[in-house]
Amino acid sequence: MSATQPSIEINANRLWNRIEVLSRITDPAKPWTRRSFDDNFAKGRIWLETEFKAAGLSVAVDSGGNLIGRREGSKSGSGALVSGSHSDTVPAGGRFDGMLGLLAALEAAQSMQEQQISLLHPLEVVDFLAEEPSDFGLSCIGSRSWAGALTESDLALRSSSGISLASAIDKLGGHAEEIRRAMRPRDSVSAYVELHIEQGLVLPERNAAIGVVTAIAGIRRYEVTVEGRADHAGTTPISLRRDALVGAAGVIRMVEELARTRSSQRPYLVATIGKISVEQNAINAVPGSVRMILETRSTEDTELAEFEQHLWQKIEPDLQQRGLHFKVSPMSKTVPTACSPLIQEAIEQAATGAGLNSTHLPSGAGHDGVFVSRIAPMGMIFVPCRDGRSHAPEEWAEPADCANGTRVLAETLLLLDRKMA
Amino acid sequence: MSATQPSIEINANRLWNRIEVLSRITDPAKPWTRRSFDDNFAKGRIWLETEFKAAGLSVAVDSGGNLIGRREGSKSGSGALVSGSHSDTVPAGGRFDGMLGLLAALEAAQSMQEQQISLLHPLEVVDFLAEEPSDFGLSCIGSRSWAGALTESDLALRSSSGISLASAIDKLGGHAEEIRRAMRPRDSVSAYVELHIEQGLVLPERNAAIGVVTAIAGIRRYEVTVEGRADHAGTTPISLRRDALVGAAGVIRMVEELARTRSSQRPYLVATIGKISVEQNAINAVPGSVRMILETRSTEDTELAEFEQHLWQKIEPDLQQRGLHFKVSPMSKTVPTACSPLIQEAIEQAATGAGLNSTHLPSGAGHDGVFVSRIAPMGMIFVPCRDGRSHAPEEWAEPADCANGTRVLAETLLLLDRKMA
Repeated sequence: MSATQPSIEINANRLWNRIEVLSRITDPAKPWTRRSFDDNFAKGRIWLETEFKAAGLSVAVDSGGNLIGRREGSKSGSGALVSGSHSDTVPAGGRFDGMLGLLAALEAAQSMQEQQISLLHPLEVVDFLAEEPSDFGLSCIGSRSWAGALTESDLALRSSSGISLASAIDKLGGHAEEIRRAMRPRDSVSAYVELHIEQGLVLPERNAAIGVVTAIAGIRRYEVTVEGRADHAGTTPISLRRDALVGAAGVIRMVEELARTRSSQRPYLVATIGKISVEQNAINAVPGSVRMILETRSTEDTELAEFEQHLWQKIEPDLQQRGLHFKVSPMSKTVPTACSPLIQEAIEQAATGAGLNSTHLPSGAGHDGVFVSRIAPMGMIFVPCRDGRSHAPEEWAEPADCANGTRVLAETLLLLDRKMA
Repeated sequence: MSATQPSIEINANRLWNRIEVLSRITDPAKPWTRRSFDDNFAKGRIWLETEFKAAGLSVAVDSGGNLIGRREGSKSGSGALVSGSHSDTVPAGGRFDGMLGLLAALEAAQSMQEQQISLLHPLEVVDFLAEEPSDFGLSCIGSRSWAGALTESDLALRSSSGISLASAIDKLGGHAEEIRRAMRPRDSVSAYVELHIEQGLVLPERNAAIGVVTAIAGIRRYEVTVEGRADHAGTTPISLRRDALVGAAGVIRMVEELARTRSSQRPYLVATIGKISVEQNAINAVPGSVRMILETRSTEDTELAEFEQHLWQKIEPDLQQRGLHFKVSPMSKTVPTACSPLIQEAIEQAATGAGLNSTHLPSGAGHDGVFVSRIAPMGMIFVPCRDGRSHAPEEWAEPADCANGTRVLAETLLLLDRKMA
């Protein structure tokens, strides 16, 4: 079989039907909502277990509350090829984020089973618990447990209704007391590959059906405050003002200008001021202070550090000249995660074999792969979604794009099975 | 008597005591608050009536609810010289805005009485009703009635507790049914002069004790919306964004730049974006739309029109290039009101006579003089207030500045009495 020919057929109708069935397990008042730990989530899990079994997988829930379907490989002692995603959603989220990657992995496994394709490595399909930030204020709970990164204080977090994360995990069949047992030894996983919608606009822009993810961006968040002086907007001449909003507007423009300039030549970088609050926020008052949240994301940690330094330097003269004070408080910081070159190569090869245009791009959004990469090589496949919209009811991916992504995922797993033998 | 010598002495202690007494008639939970139509306002009116009488004035409340103290002049048929201000405050306002001008006019009248200075013209001290925006959503109610500008639909306005403005006026001794009788014929007023705190920073900047107001600014307000596209802040490269906040920031900077440039060479102009709201206003979302209120004020109506035209031209290219749509909806518009040159001259002469530095400046804030100017020549005297702060509990004017302003007011009235004879 040549590398330009797909060696496996997937059942695109079955995939699409499953997307429809699982998405309808939703809070009817707020489609599409299936929040981790709620009743719909538990219902979804029961349905998933049945489907996993129908695909010939043996099913278990690990200590971290992850639902795992497994098919053994032919070569003993091999670490598993793992694929999957998550079945939870944000409130009023969509029908593809998480679900597509999970059901595509299931479809790949079932097609292998049906087509009697045996792998050297075991294959695992995993529904990671609570990838989205849940009521406990934490994201990627299941993948954290795989990496041994779910701490005792995480488990002690309480939801708004007062129950602990530990007991919420137990209720779903996990075993928080033995959370260490969810941690996967390095030799138990050979590779992790996840299919996901892009949640952006790069694929349509480049007319590509398949995205080969190069890295998952690190994220830094800062609170930036600009302090001026509140004055009467009628009686205070422009030359005597210390208008915090005018200063903040300069910061907003500079963030954009600097990010635009740097990202055109350097690694992926985005910088956003998405949240702002103004005091006094009154029609006839010169704004006295402005508080903003700056978020930067890049696939290179040094780029985040350089951007930050460069920005503070650039904005200072204007603020100083206006008699404005500015203060920056770091809020949070995660480091970028590179995708495995071997997996990227396999995805590209699989796409070519399927006759699909592919392009390399980073993931600006966080994913379970960030944690899984601590124990195994990790890769991600993106497919386009309409208008780049995600985390919203109108989130949409065309059936053909879902099928393309699933074919590429299945073929990638076959390629990795041989490459990693 | 030479023009460089004040011809009247005022009693600075009595003035200051009255400021202290009237300011203590306040909502104790929220100093300094004496809202038009509330119980404290009515108490203040009762106290004022006693003080007016002690100054030898005959007292009446006109149909518009204005409290008027009057002293006859020696030349029959002359229109009155009128001075005063208002005794109401904004919520948690100060002890000088309104009160100072009113009590200074009273002090001037009482000193004339005591020093047996007789005027050719009648002298009227007036407490205009509800200069500040009241619960009825309307400002300058009393001075509107003088100008015949208080309409039937104004009188039908209802407060949050459901009573009509008409009955609120009646409760204070007015007579809304005969509101036309509050309207002053042109020949009944020779001139109106009001002392007020500056509410700004120009006087201290110029080291001047007295401000000669040249005009009261006209005000235009607009709602400016910038529409872009909400996107995921992690997954949308800068080059593919249509970030409404970046566009809005350009508008904010351009408003300031244009106002700064123009106002350095042309008539008084201020332009402010004081209020802004951002959608979605979330840390990880590229802002999809921004709504701002733009306020412009100038002493020249043509300047307001030119600024507006110039601004829309200047901001368009940047917004267009970013794929952003902008929409401007005019919200309100008042025209500038010039102060009488004769009165300005008298104020300047009075200041010089009292050995005080004076400077000409516009009023960026609105005042009752806007309406009174429709029936008579109008002028205003400003004195400094600490840090330019007003409409706030910390509003403060030094006793010496209050006394200076009152001396200049009294002397201005004497000068006008002769100039207008």
